[in-house]
Amino acid sequence: MSAPAPGTQQAMRRRNLSLVLHALAAEDSLSRAAVATRIGLTRAGVSALVDELLRGGLIVELGPGRPGTVGRPGSALALNDQGPCGIGAEIGVDHLAVCVVDLRGAVRARIAVDAANRGRAPGPVLAELDGLLRKITARARREGLTPAGLGVAVPGLVDRDQCVVRAPNLGWRAVDVRQLLATSLPVTVDNEANVGALTELRETQWRDFVHVSAEIGIGAAVVVDGELLRGTHGFAGELGHVPVHPDGPDCACGGRGCLEQYAGEEAVLRACGIPPERAAREHPGPGGRIALLARRAQDGDAAVVTALDGAGTALGIALSGVVNLLDPQAVVLGGALAGLAPWVLPAVERELGTRLADRARTVRLAVSRTAGEGPLLGAAHRVVQSVLDDPAAVARL
Amino acid sequence: MSAPAPGTQQAMRRRNLSLVLHALAAEDSLSRAAVATRIGLTRAGVSALVDELLRGGLIVELGPGRPGTVGRPGSALALNDQGPCGIGAEIGVDHLAVCVVDLRGAVRARIAVDAANRGRAPGPVLAELDGLLRKITARARREGLTPAGLGVAVPGLVDRDQCVVRAPNLGWRAVDVRQLLATSLPVTVDNEANVGALTELRETQWRDFVHVSAEIGIGAAVVVDGELLRGTHGFAGELGHVPVHPDGPDCACGGRGCLEQYAGEEAVLRACGIPPERAAREHPGPGGRIALLARRAQDGDAAVVTALDGAGTALGIALSGVVNLLDPQAVVLGGALAGLAPWVLPAVERELGTRLADRARTVRLAVSRTAGEGPLLGAAHRVVQSVLDDPAAVARL
Repeated sequence: MSAPAPGTQQAMRRRNLSLVLHALAAEDSLSRAAVATRIGLTRAGVSALVDELLRGGLIVELGPGRPGTVGRPGSALALNDQGPCGIGAEIGVDHLAVCVVDLRGAVRARIAVDAANRGRAPGPVLAELDGLLRKITARARREGLTPAGLGVAVPGLVDRDQCVVRAPNLGWRAVDVRQLLATSLPVTVDNEANVGALTELRETQWRDFVHVSAEIGIGAAVVVDGELLRGTHGFAGELGHVPVHPDGPDCACGGRGCLEQYAGEEAVLRACGIPPERAAREHPGPGGRIALLARRAQDGDAAVVTALDGAGTALGIALSGVVNLLDPQAVVLGGALAGLAPWVLPAVERELGTRLADRARTVRLAVSRTAGEGPLLGAAHRVVQSVLDDPAAVARL
Repeated sequence: MSAPAPGTQQAMRRRNLSLVLHALAAEDSLSRAAVATRIGLTRAGVSALVDELLRGGLIVELGPGRPGTVGRPGSALALNDQGPCGIGAEIGVDHLAVCVVDLRGAVRARIAVDAANRGRAPGPVLAELDGLLRKITARARREGLTPAGLGVAVPGLVDRDQCVVRAPNLGWRAVDVRQLLATSLPVTVDNEANVGALTELRETQWRDFVHVSAEIGIGAAVVVDGELLRGTHGFAGELGHVPVHPDGPDCACGGRGCLEQYAGEEAVLRACGIPPERAAREHPGPGGRIALLARRAQDGDAAVVTALDGAGTALGIALSGVVNLLDPQAVVLGGALAGLAPWVLPAVERELGTRLADRARTVRLAVSRTAGEGPLLGAAHRVVQSVLDDPAAVARL
């Protein structure tokens, strides 16, 4: 019973401006005629839209010898790589990172620093992030880009008002990141698994998938028909608290035997006989503990190999429920799981194979190729996406 | 990255015709001016659309003394209750049913018969259904209605091509219902939990919910933002095969410890010490076994009360995973579960209460009020919905 948006001339124009941008985003460059064919509008209609977008600095003419200017109607058009851009930021338990992504989706700059954010108050963390943001926006401007907004990825539950309701591994509760940041840019805050999924959406052909993002905790993002499923309160994707063994160990969430109790970083370290506190001390920084586990597994450390197989088994059990419920095209393992895939994946495949019977053949199990940068890039890309979706909201068109 | 539909004049007109119908569906009647305000179009634009819809027989003028005719612009408009209608059909394990629903959503006729369909070949079942369909379409025509299509609800997996891939409790595999039915109407086939959810969508204010539909098996429908989540192959919602105790009893699906092994009808009967085959023989017909269980539970039969509590516990464990993953507004228990709610619900609430901690307060747990008719009515309503969504596809506009 979802009613379509009212078909006023004004709404139609904004929709069509966006259609032109999306057509150009899907290809490197297109002529006006090719754009018209692709989006099903007349040549004349497209020319008028293109003129507006050229004036607004959202696209450029690639005509030989006259880049960036209004050229012959026959010449190729492309998104402007010196126009609006998205700024991304990631608040990790072990690090802070910022980046710039242009309208074409290219990463133009990035800065990452180690930071011991566990248990650190929001104020100092966000003050440090503000410093990085000043640096990266200055760099963006030096590249001729105009920041259109900032997307922030956090390892926690973010509600519909973009407040960080709970980030257990930072120790944050009810933190309004937008209010605490000094930046004057429009800010959107999102869960890391969600923005990481936006990167997978760009990198893969899948439109219906589950993106599992494990760092210290285990989160997931559910993508349906190319869109994030956010849930009523914005809390969808709490895969880490799906019960695996309902009578298992108590979990901080109030439940018992949740996936995080078997496949979360602390559970795996414990299963390997490594006290998590010591590991955090001796192997700080992003990926430190993961590298340690991968090295030991590589060296054939039986305890580590067994622990990772156990994590994969638990993950496979939880995912078989998810696949039964959602029937996705694919499950993508990202974050720490990507780095530990050689030892985790076989058990996941084994569980899906026995529990889904004829269905296991139809769901793809893949490992993210974003090398842990999915959430950061996705946060920036979300800004770019919003420009492509409604350019009139950013540029004066 | 979902691109909006192209904004041609033709597409805009079809969208706007639908907007007018949806505005009238939301209210009993509206003046042209009220429609214009509601959908954000000009008075003149709405008048032209209304004239088309009046000529097409989709709406009527309620002007005093001149019902059903083109009247003064000031008089009230309503959907035509003598226009196109939807025919619904349900193929149950124990029964067959058909109904007629008009554009206003009113049920105008229904026929239901007991039928022992378990293990019966598709041919005879669908031949019997064809007989019922002839009767109900004749009745619809006598009421002055014009059937616009037929929706069929089946207790099984239906793929994107609307083929019944598997209906284990009928014993069907790869059955093309559309090809086997004699009706000349356009036919859509869907899983019973899915069409049942469409009825809940009409009856409740929820737009994000999970509809659990238990008969012999346990299915579910996931509704996101007012739309059914169908899954890549159309198989989403297989709640009955979410693992509850991963090392539990073998399930026909190939897995172990699936929800159906604890909360399916056969599992519950067995837990009560009632052989399922005998129960099926002695209590045939829709709801026969459910009535038996409800009666015994009412009489304080400890084995039955314990078995239903066990079913609720398993359901609560599976649902806590679902709520963590999807963050719905509500979970609606339909089908057999609705009839057994007094004995099943407390255990479900208990599990959600401990496993979701602060989240349990935010998700509503409700019992369907459709008295088992949700799938049948939803199947008919799906046809009505398609008329409201694109009237130009049905009437010559």
